[in-house]
Amino acid sequence: MRLSIQVLLDYGFPEPADVLLQIEAAALPAQRLETQALVIESDHPIRAVAGEEGVGQRCWARGKGRLVARYEAVVAIERAALDLAMLPATPVTSLPAATIPYLLPSRYCESDRFEHLVRRRFEGLSGGALALALTDFVRGHLRYDGADTDARTTAMETFASGRGVCRDYAHLLVALARAAEIPARCVAVYAPGVDPPDFHAVAELWLDGSWHLVDATGMARADEMAVVTVGRDATDIAFMTVFGTANLWTQTVRVERIAD
Amino acid sequence: MRLSIQVLLDYGFPEPADVLLQIEAAALPAQRLETQALVIESDHPIRAVAGEEGVGQRCWARGKGRLVARYEAVVAIERAALDLAMLPATPVTSLPAATIPYLLPSRYCESDRFEHLVRRRFEGLSGGALALALTDFVRGHLRYDGADTDARTTAMETFASGRGVCRDYAHLLVALARAAEIPARCVAVYAPGVDPPDFHAVAELWLDGSWHLVDATGMARADEMAVVTVGRDATDIAFMTVFGTANLWTQTVRVERIAD
Amino acid sequence: MRLSIQVLLDYGFPEPADVLLQIEAAALPAQRLETQALVIESDHPIRAVAGEEGVGQRCWARGKGRLVARYEAVVAIERAALDLAMLPATPVTSLPAATIPYLLPSRYCESDRFEHLVRRRFEGLSGGALALALTDFVRGHLRYDGADTDARTTAMETFASGRGVCRDYAHLLVALARAAEIPARCVAVYAPGVDPPDFHAVAELWLDGSWHLVDATGMARADEMAVVTVGRDATDIAFMTVFGTANLWTQTVRVERIAD
Amino acid sequence: MRLSIQVLLDYGFPEPADVLLQIEAAALPAQRLETQALVIESDHPIRAVAGEEGVGQRCWARGKGRLVARYEAVVAIERAALDLAMLPATPVTSLPAATIPYLLPSRYCESDRFEHLVRRRFEGLSGGALALALTDFVRGHLRYDGADTDARTTAMETFASGRGVCRDYAHLLVALARAAEIPARCVAVYAPGVDPPDFHAVAELWLDGSWHLVDATGMARADEMAVVTVGRDATDIAFMTVFGTANLWTQTVRVERIAD
Repeated sequence: MRLSIQVLLDYGFPEPADVLLQIEAAALPAQRLETQALVIESDHPIRAVAGEEGVGQRCWARGKGRLVARYEAVVAIERAALDLAMLPATPVTSLPAATIPYLLPSRYCESDRFEHLVRRRFEGLSGGALALALTDFVRGHLRYDGADTDARTTAMETFASGRGVCRDYAHLLVALARAAEIPARCVAVYAPGVDPPDFHAVAELWLDGSWHLVDATGMARADEMAVVTVGRDATDIAFMTVFGTANLWTQTVRVERIAD
Repeated sequence: MRLSIQVLLDYGFPEPADVLLQIEAAALPAQRLETQALVIESDHPIRAVAGEEGVGQRCWARGKGRLVARYEAVVAIERAALDLAMLPATPVTSLPAATIPYLLPSRYCESDRFEHLVRRRFEGLSGGALALALTDFVRGHLRYDGADTDARTTAMETFASGRGVCRDYAHLLVALARAAEIPARCVAVYAPGVDPPDFHAVAELWLDGSWHLVDATGMARADEMAVVTVGRDATDIAFMTVFGTANLWTQTVRVERIAD
Repeated sequence: MRLSIQVLLDYGFPEPADVLLQIEAAALPAQRLETQALVIESDHPIRAVAGEEGVGQRCWARGKGRLVARYEAVVAIERAALDLAMLPATPVTSLPAATIPYLLPSRYCESDRFEHLVRRRFEGLSGGALALALTDFVRGHLRYDGADTDARTTAMETFASGRGVCRDYAHLLVALARAAEIPARCVAVYAPGVDPPDFHAVAELWLDGSWHLVDATGMARADEMAVVTVGRDATDIAFMTVFGTANLWTQTVRVERIAD
Repeated sequence: MRLSIQVLLDYGFPEPADVLLQIEAAALPAQRLETQALVIESDHPIRAVAGEEGVGQRCWARGKGRLVARYEAVVAIERAALDLAMLPATPVTSLPAATIPYLLPSRYCESDRFEHLVRRRFEGLSGGALALALTDFVRGHLRYDGADTDARTTAMETFASGRGVCRDYAHLLVALARAAEIPARCVAVYAPGVDPPDFHAVAELWLDGSWHLVDATGMARADEMAVVTVGRDATDIAFMTVFGTANLWTQTVRVERIAD
């Protein structure tokens, strides 16, 4: 499966500010970058560093007056879509050290608040069956609707409101999974068919020795996602982190399947 | 139905602090105070003022080193236990002015966060049937367990954790009812059979032209409660508000049915 | 001093919703309504009820598709501007019952969080001198700037961010005053010279037996404000409370001094 | 400088729960473990994994009825105490990839809330001088006092209350440093002279190419601290994380300088 990705960001800056961009598809065993170009219009030097967990990369830019970034890529995805339900549980004591941070609460995923609820409601389930039950629960509990959400909405707020966007679905699933002692992280991806077309966020659950992409919104399939970056929650995977204030002028994200 | 009430509070104060006590059963048409005595050991003058909405009274004291308060009363309750389900809905535009504040969010009842959830999950219900459905929902969703709760726990946190004490049950029911456009307030009561025996908090919902006591924990019946005070949430109805810091030394609450 | 007030609200409603409007200047001893007209375009019956504490009035409307409200008034203000610093302190035990709720924390004014800070930083001050010191502190601590604030921003968040709009200034002053055991409420007002021209929010502090308007932003003077409504915080005094979702189409507020 | 460390943890478990312990001093270039023994009384197998960033280690245990852990060590510290003020600033674009996560907000350090305040109040400062000014600010703003704090208190709440314990000092300094674009993390340490004697938490700031320990409480010096673990905030560095509920029975921490 091949994806064509086109992104345009155009932001204004009332005062100069440092900007951290994460918009490039990552080079990974399961996804190959056929072509890729990132152009940032800026007088300042740009610098890239490795992304969280070594997945993808982050790019520092300087917003001064205006910042325009254009990104184009063709990515070949060779990730198998898996039946989660079949995966056995991993006891926490067998988890690799690198997955432990993803068991803990983070800024937008207050997993410590959900422990009792998860324990009681999903009693008896474990491993892939539990992961699937949590995903179904999130999908059933939420409606896709941005009316109650903004960049600071947390999993707990989303749970109360009963609606949210992809970011909120991912946060809630991640919070519940961690409360269930399944390591869970957030992943920024490009995926076709996302409505509205935009940067997309999904969850990734650690089951049976590896990470598995799960889109609680049901809009994207694991074998059609181009991973950009991973992290604890939206703080880590934001496509743009501004140390100051920025105003959106234009932002477009186009992701299309390329016919073979 | 007659109740015997005995309360002892004994608190230490590292620094002098003003203290607002609300521990006296209110004189109300549906509850008659047969005998009542409040004794506060303090060098400072004590002063009582009317409680919220004119229900009951508040008493100012001064915590200096130590504050001991003893309260004893016999209260005759003549409140009918009502079948909520039969009560018709009141359109918001017909609500009395005094009920409007109880439609709005408050410190511990973030009703604005629950609007969508309530609207979707309880669609088609109204009036007493809706009130009953919300009460059943709270009772089913929560376990009575104090492990996740403290004096600052909010309805949203309780909803996520799935457990709480009487105060949390009341907060969650009040938040949901307001989100459903039913005026709802919190009420401090004395009730027999409360386990553990303590100050008890319940909700009060405005239906068909009057307030109706509802205990989402199911531990107390409306015809067995002696109302102390009413308010928006625990901030208003706390038995003790300290403007500073106090340390609990001893606190006992005994409420018993008096055989006829 | 006479004010001319002109307001236009034009909102869209994706789904029908109940709407509570509070946009009419209140009839009060210190402000006389010379002319006043509120026109709401709606197929549904409109109904007015008394405002919080009997100040002003609230008006129920139904947002269905679209809601347009026009308000015009001329108000004569006869309120004296007072030197707060001269006012003596009132011991909490002498406060009228009706002021006690304004000592307690509310949804957006977490006064319980600020008690230690206020006690330590303003030690030795009381009454009007303390009120003035708190006002100066808020004015010095904050910059007028809406970049960090939205309808759910609380006093604690404003204190951390160091900036906000009129609503945030009022919330922070109210929170600090309550922490200092001075009853404090929020007041919606019309005032000339407010920049940007809009609904304005200020604080009201209880000192020496009456309420005193204080604008921590410094933009409006007490003798030039037309009070609309009072309450615990923005939840009570919002010009529009929607039980559902509304989209702003147009909103203008014009307030001008009328030359004698 | 050599430290003798003795720890006893004794906790009860109402229900079986997984427990993550982080109480062993880390083996690091600047600190050498002369002797070390961790004994956990448990029927279940214990398993250790590497700590966050490869610093120290985490140990999984199973709380069933009761969990007793004893730790004893002698650690030789060879860390130089440095004058922070001399360190030059590092532009964010020159930061190593591994430090970027420590620029972002976390569960208890809402650095995004403090950006404006930090920018305005510490304008013109950078590098070590800025780090020192932030540390002095935290020390001056807070009193060491546990009355307002619990395990879920955040930097924003601490800032409002004006008091806290070591954990709160560390959280506030970390939040402010990140807001100032200085990477900052939290560090659990053993240090002599800490009052009350307990697990201690400090901040670590990235300046001039390396991490520097800073104790905003002023109780411990960098050359007297034995580092246990590092992380984004208290979620990562907690000495004990329980996936469920535990009750403290006994806990003692003794740290003493060993005379040469």
